[in-house]
Amino acid sequence: MDRTGELSEAVHDSAFYRWFGLRLGDVEPGVVTLHLELAEHHVNIQGLAHGGVLATIADAAMGLAVRSAVEPGRRHVTVAMDVHYLRPVARGALSATGRAVRVGRELAFAEAEVADERGRSLVRASGTYSVSRPTED
Amino acid sequence: MDRTGELSEAVHDSAFYRWFGLRLGDVEPGVVTLHLELAEHHVNIQGLAHGGVLATIADAAMGLAVRSAVEPGRRHVTVAMDVHYLRPVARGALSATGRAVRVGRELAFAEAEVADERGRSLVRASGTYSVSRPTED
Amino acid sequence: MDRTGELSEAVHDSAFYRWFGLRLGDVEPGVVTLHLELAEHHVNIQGLAHGGVLATIADAAMGLAVRSAVEPGRRHVTVAMDVHYLRPVARGALSATGRAVRVGRELAFAEAEVADERGRSLVRASGTYSVSRPTED
Amino acid sequence: MDRTGELSEAVHDSAFYRWFGLRLGDVEPGVVTLHLELAEHHVNIQGLAHGGVLATIADAAMGLAVRSAVEPGRRHVTVAMDVHYLRPVARGALSATGRAVRVGRELAFAEAEVADERGRSLVRASGTYSVSRPTED
Repeated sequence: MDRTGELSEAVHDSAFYRWFGLRLGDVEPGVVTLHLELAEHHVNIQGLAHGGVLATIADAAMGLAVRSAVEPGRRHVTVAMDVHYLRPVARGALSATGRAVRVGRELAFAEAEVADERGRSLVRASGTYSVSRPTED
Repeated sequence: MDRTGELSEAVHDSAFYRWFGLRLGDVEPGVVTLHLELAEHHVNIQGLAHGGVLATIADAAMGLAVRSAVEPGRRHVTVAMDVHYLRPVARGALSATGRAVRVGRELAFAEAEVADERGRSLVRASGTYSVSRPTED
Repeated sequence: MDRTGELSEAVHDSAFYRWFGLRLGDVEPGVVTLHLELAEHHVNIQGLAHGGVLATIADAAMGLAVRSAVEPGRRHVTVAMDVHYLRPVARGALSATGRAVRVGRELAFAEAEVADERGRSLVRASGTYSVSRPTED
Repeated sequence: MDRTGELSEAVHDSAFYRWFGLRLGDVEPGVVTLHLELAEHHVNIQGLAHGGVLATIADAAMGLAVRSAVEPGRRHVTVAMDVHYLRPVARGALSATGRAVRVGRELAFAEAEVADERGRSLVRASGTYSVSRPTED
């Protein structure tokens, strides 16, 4: 099974992705796009998409991008994440594109952008991922 | 109504908090604790609490801590957040304590720690929040 | 005087830039490049360029990029900075390119990349800057 | 030679520390304080301590704190750093205290605070450090 198929299956089987409403979009090696239609429960007390919701789709897109760039059998665990909120958003369809910028022997570095339907950048994020083999852990 | 009552009501009325499973714990001015019982849908493909879930409870605790420290009527919008993952966690009850470290005229800075049932630190986070009055925006 | 001239003069007059060894390169509105020839005193105990040195040229390039993108008379003060170290470097000529990604009424967001002589990315950084007018402060 | 002596010697022999003006203060296992007397060349175009200067003393204090907490022979290389600027400072004596919060097999996490003479917090920072043994690299 190719990488797209493997990721699709993993996402499809995931209670987390279903609960969150995340759908897998385009997959290339090292670049993965996710989609989220904002619902009422994604919105904070002030009527805007919750910062944690936007952080989650950025982290998910970066994690899958890293996963798509390493050989099967290596884990990807988030070590640290930075999220910058450029514009608030209240509703609509969001897309998050994660990109593995550098994959090393132990660590990977990825970046993500979350955009609204009109392609405006809402969030820029970056993440550090541990990609050691499970047996090394 | 006091600050604790105001936050309790806001959280109780929030579709986001219900959906996520977040419950409000202790509230002091500038310090707010949230609780989350990890469920199957909070867990990633690898069986560990999703980085975005942990980021969300940290952001929520920091945002409420900032809200509890500013006068009513000022917004709190996340400008940026850093999340550091110290230990993975697979199940159990988590608590996140947010603390408003500094509240200025336009910006606030907060920190959060997410811990497991045994009090072990899982996540350390910090956030920058815009706290301008709505009319100034 | 145009923006490039204004930045050149400011950098030329700066004791900080002389001490650090930073030279101004290309300037476009919102995009500024700085150059640094690594010297013995930029290197840490382990023989590699100090993390703070690399953070400094990233911050300086982002700050000038923001300055080049706002009207004269507005300050730019670093609110927060994230720095990611992708590859160590021991010697040679570095260049840092800062880019103002978004400039708002109160805050600006910028990104920077530090590269070595062969163009390899050593550092990716992002920064949040306060750009309020001095009289508003 | 004990850890304090070893760090003192390393700092004393370092061209970087001399150039920057950094002096080693208290050293305990996992907690290291550095001192810096702000000079004209530490100040930016706007008359305030440069963001990079403050980031550097935070990174240096965290790096030494990590070094003081791991066995001799392990490197400490900055993987990522977040710096939050709470108050500007123009002059005087600064101190930076770094603290190793968690040291793992491959990674360490540290935090730092930079304060002015009156003990007011100027900067809060956190850093991720690679602490692998050289031979594993």
